[in-house]
Amino acid sequence: MELYFSPLACSLATRIALYEMDLPARFVQVDSKTKTLPDGTDYRSLHPLGLVPFLRTDGGELLSENAAILQYVGELPAKTKLMPERPLERIRVHQWLCFIGTELHRSTFSPLLDPDAPEAVKRYAIEHGRSRLEHVDHHLRDRKHLTDELTVADAYLFAILNWTLATPIKLDDYPGLRDFRNRMLERPMFAKAFGEEVQLYQAELAKRR
Amino acid sequence: MELYFSPLACSLATRIALYEMDLPARFVQVDSKTKTLPDGTDYRSLHPLGLVPFLRTDGGELLSENAAILQYVGELPAKTKLMPERPLERIRVHQWLCFIGTELHRSTFSPLLDPDAPEAVKRYAIEHGRSRLEHVDHHLRDRKHLTDELTVADAYLFAILNWTLATPIKLDDYPGLRDFRNRMLERPMFAKAFGEEVQLYQAELAKRR
Repeated sequence: MELYFSPLACSLATRIALYEMDLPARFVQVDSKTKTLPDGTDYRSLHPLGLVPFLRTDGGELLSENAAILQYVGELPAKTKLMPERPLERIRVHQWLCFIGTELHRSTFSPLLDPDAPEAVKRYAIEHGRSRLEHVDHHLRDRKHLTDELTVADAYLFAILNWTLATPIKLDDYPGLRDFRNRMLERPMFAKAFGEEVQLYQAELAKRR
Repeated sequence: MELYFSPLACSLATRIALYEMDLPARFVQVDSKTKTLPDGTDYRSLHPLGLVPFLRTDGGELLSENAAILQYVGELPAKTKLMPERPLERIRVHQWLCFIGTELHRSTFSPLLDPDAPEAVKRYAIEHGRSRLEHVDHHLRDRKHLTDELTVADAYLFAILNWTLATPIKLDDYPGLRDFRNRMLERPMFAKAFGEEVQLYQAELAKRR
């Protein structure tokens, strides 16, 4: 497999899933500003919208959309699966993937992370996000994970929550989310993936300066 | 099954899927402004965020999130399935459900349909949406459906495209999307579901006046 990613983008969730499941993959970095690949070619010749993650499967298929890739990877044969077997539990994971993708990632965090978004857009995103963040915060107050076991949805939520480090949303206002992120960071594979991408992110920033 | 819906909201996609698959269901209308149920009770006592669709399965489980509900319904035993059997084709449907949910529904149309969204927010949504709409438009220029067969993703896209009737996005700028919507409207179950919800929507508006 080949995962096209940008450091600390939502593609981090797939890296985490691959590490947790001990699945081999090649990671290809996409410069998040210039949309170029390490060899200088334009990533948009591969993915017209320039979005990450983008996964080339072992069968050569190209898959896009974070929540879809996470469902795919979570179900791959591995010792540790990150998608439950029981149909209803699977639906719950789909539900969380969709909620995180639409309500948190796209409606709340994307505008806050966009340096070109006007102030009014950022304010609107923060107002929209409050009830959504409270909803997940409340859900996680007495739970270890979003569902009964660790799944790809937890990896996605973790990737999103890291963005609070660069936005006006403060995790201390959401103790359930803050403690969840800390718990996930105690997992060696989450910490390894996060640590590696922090370094790559800093290198990208340094190169840009 | 019981489907909580608001007329012409994205819950329309699930109604279409149920009709196409000939699955019995009870439809419970949620007033999209007041968030009340037909008996006057507050819908938020059931779904804290007041979002539709919300599905009560025959087993009594409550499922939320449009793309997750569509995956669930599409796989129910029925003569006509709206989810493909082949794993790769399924992933492609997941991919489109995610794309429609994040890039079109949440990032583009939601702010345009929100009467309280500031002008700058609506402008930002239109700018963001253009490349995304072009992407699906291009994909549908030489295809009948988003994937090889009709699936729940087509029902979701159809539901979203109806919103162009109430937003500054003009379908004539996207012939692939316009023709797709017309093709879907030729299907009796799409037309029935859409026609019913147009009437319910107009009744809701009339009641509000």
